[in-house]
Amino acid sequence: MNERFNKGLETIKNYVTDEEVTKMVEHDALADIAPDLRKMIIEFAYGEVYSREGLDAKSRALVVITTVVTQGAAPQTKTHITRGLHAGLTPKEIVEALLQLVPYIGFPRVQNALVIAQQVFQERELTV
Amino acid sequence: MNERFNKGLETIKNYVTDEEVTKMVEHDALADIAPDLRKMIIEFAYGEVYSREGLDAKSRALVVITTVVTQGAAPQTKTHITRGLHAGLTPKEIVEALLQLVPYIGFPRVQNALVIAQQVFQERELTV
Amino acid sequence: MNERFNKGLETIKNYVTDEEVTKMVEHDALADIAPDLRKMIIEFAYGEVYSREGLDAKSRALVVITTVVTQGAAPQTKTHITRGLHAGLTPKEIVEALLQLVPYIGFPRVQNALVIAQQVFQERELTV
Amino acid sequence: MNERFNKGLETIKNYVTDEEVTKMVEHDALADIAPDLRKMIIEFAYGEVYSREGLDAKSRALVVITTVVTQGAAPQTKTHITRGLHAGLTPKEIVEALLQLVPYIGFPRVQNALVIAQQVFQERELTV
Amino acid sequence: MNERFNKGLETIKNYVTDEEVTKMVEHDALADIAPDLRKMIIEFAYGEVYSREGLDAKSRALVVITTVVTQGAAPQTKTHITRGLHAGLTPKEIVEALLQLVPYIGFPRVQNALVIAQQVFQERELTV
Amino acid sequence: MNERFNKGLETIKNYVTDEEVTKMVEHDALADIAPDLRKMIIEFAYGEVYSREGLDAKSRALVVITTVVTQGAAPQTKTHITRGLHAGLTPKEIVEALLQLVPYIGFPRVQNALVIAQQVFQERELTV
Repeated sequence: MNERFNKGLETIKNYVTDEEVTKMVEHDALADIAPDLRKMIIEFAYGEVYSREGLDAKSRALVVITTVVTQGAAPQTKTHITRGLHAGLTPKEIVEALLQLVPYIGFPRVQNALVIAQQVFQERELTV
Repeated sequence: MNERFNKGLETIKNYVTDEEVTKMVEHDALADIAPDLRKMIIEFAYGEVYSREGLDAKSRALVVITTVVTQGAAPQTKTHITRGLHAGLTPKEIVEALLQLVPYIGFPRVQNALVIAQQVFQERELTV
Repeated sequence: MNERFNKGLETIKNYVTDEEVTKMVEHDALADIAPDLRKMIIEFAYGEVYSREGLDAKSRALVVITTVVTQGAAPQTKTHITRGLHAGLTPKEIVEALLQLVPYIGFPRVQNALVIAQQVFQERELTV
Repeated sequence: MNERFNKGLETIKNYVTDEEVTKMVEHDALADIAPDLRKMIIEFAYGEVYSREGLDAKSRALVVITTVVTQGAAPQTKTHITRGLHAGLTPKEIVEALLQLVPYIGFPRVQNALVIAQQVFQERELTV
Repeated sequence: MNERFNKGLETIKNYVTDEEVTKMVEHDALADIAPDLRKMIIEFAYGEVYSREGLDAKSRALVVITTVVTQGAAPQTKTHITRGLHAGLTPKEIVEALLQLVPYIGFPRVQNALVIAQQVFQERELTV
Repeated sequence: MNERFNKGLETIKNYVTDEEVTKMVEHDALADIAPDLRKMIIEFAYGEVYSREGLDAKSRALVVITTVVTQGAAPQTKTHITRGLHAGLTPKEIVEALLQLVPYIGFPRVQNALVIAQQVFQERELTV
């Protein structure tokens, strides 16, 4: 485990619980066919990109939620709303960011994302 | 001009200069074929969505820049980077938001957006 | 409930049964986190856009089915094929609209949409 | 030139002038690298798909305009608005179809398409 | 069944087992609403496009896997990874093609596609 | 300049001329606002991804051309068709890959890409 990997793991802690970091290190669901994907995500996405200065973790989470909702990527919408909460975004801010997208991507994808957000908030007993 | 229209114009001032607001009111490039588009943008997009509470103007601008870059919409990328600067985003924050997109949309659209950002910054003599 | 909301509800009746309109008014699945989404859909999407003159309800339904299929949005494809039938599109016209998309979006999304259309027609015991 | 090719040419006449059909037959801009593309467009897109029964030419044009605008494909937006006019869509119907897309794809792509529509109408001295 | 249909069936054999070809001919899941879709897929997609010279079956499969993953089309990703294996792509080559997409479409769609690839390989007891 | 950077530069030579590599090292058009983008492209995209084993340079170029054409990214389509030629793809193979996309993305984006390919071939006096 090199410096970029460690920096990546350190950065991920802004977005997930320590428990999840441990799980990521100990278990890689794609280890049998593409072990390098996790490595790239930790080293490049977190170690090189998320860890940059000049934009705080909350804003980075907002950018990532926005792009995956715009792409209509359902599994990632759930993941990154969860990570956004961990990074300090409030449920209210997440809902507002999704509504702000209506004039730019229309209602369907926003509605699908709000259904996912609702589920994430309920699982954590959070209210808006 | 109704209440939503006025609220929209008031809200737009967070994103464009007073001069541009005046220009918007006095001149509508699509007036001959679709005069209601401008009305919808001012009343709905700005008067009803952008004007909501719970997320500041800078964060709304960040969300909008992210979605138009993800969609690969070049003219809107220029418009909303410009409006983001007016709303208080620094050139540095805009560049960081674009780089944050690399792991989610890949290099091509990020590179195209950075070329547009560079042009906007140069026209305003801004440095990162 | 204002004028735009009422106009929206009136317009929706071209696309859904009276029973569903009642259900929409009485129950909002996202009420706890984003009550304004339903309001925006009724007031803006239906009250301001669908209610415009110059294009009939059938043609508007055709446009909406086309855009959600092109976006690959599965839940909305089901919703809007159902609403299109209510607005007067025949199963045959819907199937033809989907096949017309083959040269413009390719087979995969058309095939996925036809599977959804088939399910909607079967639930209503409609034949093409 | 086989039967499908002839049927395709016959069908294209619903969408373009006789002059343009002649030009298509006599000149193929991609003849040096991909002569089969034009053949596929005429035989398959027009000869097999557009020529089907069950949906009139105006509705097919509406479907095609909608999908290319949703995709953000600028050159095709111009082509198919022009063909839609030839197939019998009025400028008003085209503008309404584009505005109907606002709640489903947002303002940016609709605005870009309206600018193109305006240009097509001006070249033909058409008013909405 | 015409010449193009037969050529299509012949070509499909490069991508699926003989058993599946028989199943395709004997059973069409969309026969009740759109019997011409299967005909178009066999005659046009396989009989006219896949059957062309100048690019081998493996490379055509690689192109098709890439485009459906880029579009985020999950059902087709499974179908075409399976067909790619039949056409001679190794599991390793498929995994590498998916990882090659990371810098162009980002991690989310690549990760979703790798999960599908893993499932296809496991069902066939293939290792990378 | 670290090991990944050097490996990246070595790998790029499969796709561009030595002259262009020198130009890349000596001149970075985005140096004033985002010097790290070029670094990421060379170190991550080329040094970590393109440089992997298990898929040859020609096949990687085919994958990249396919994804940028599917995304409708015009500037990148030109860049990667050019790099594909350098990696050993013939003009014929590139044209066939583009035509293979017709059943999966439709005619518009394929036609736009063929116009770009034609221009690249003409500049290099290549015939198909």
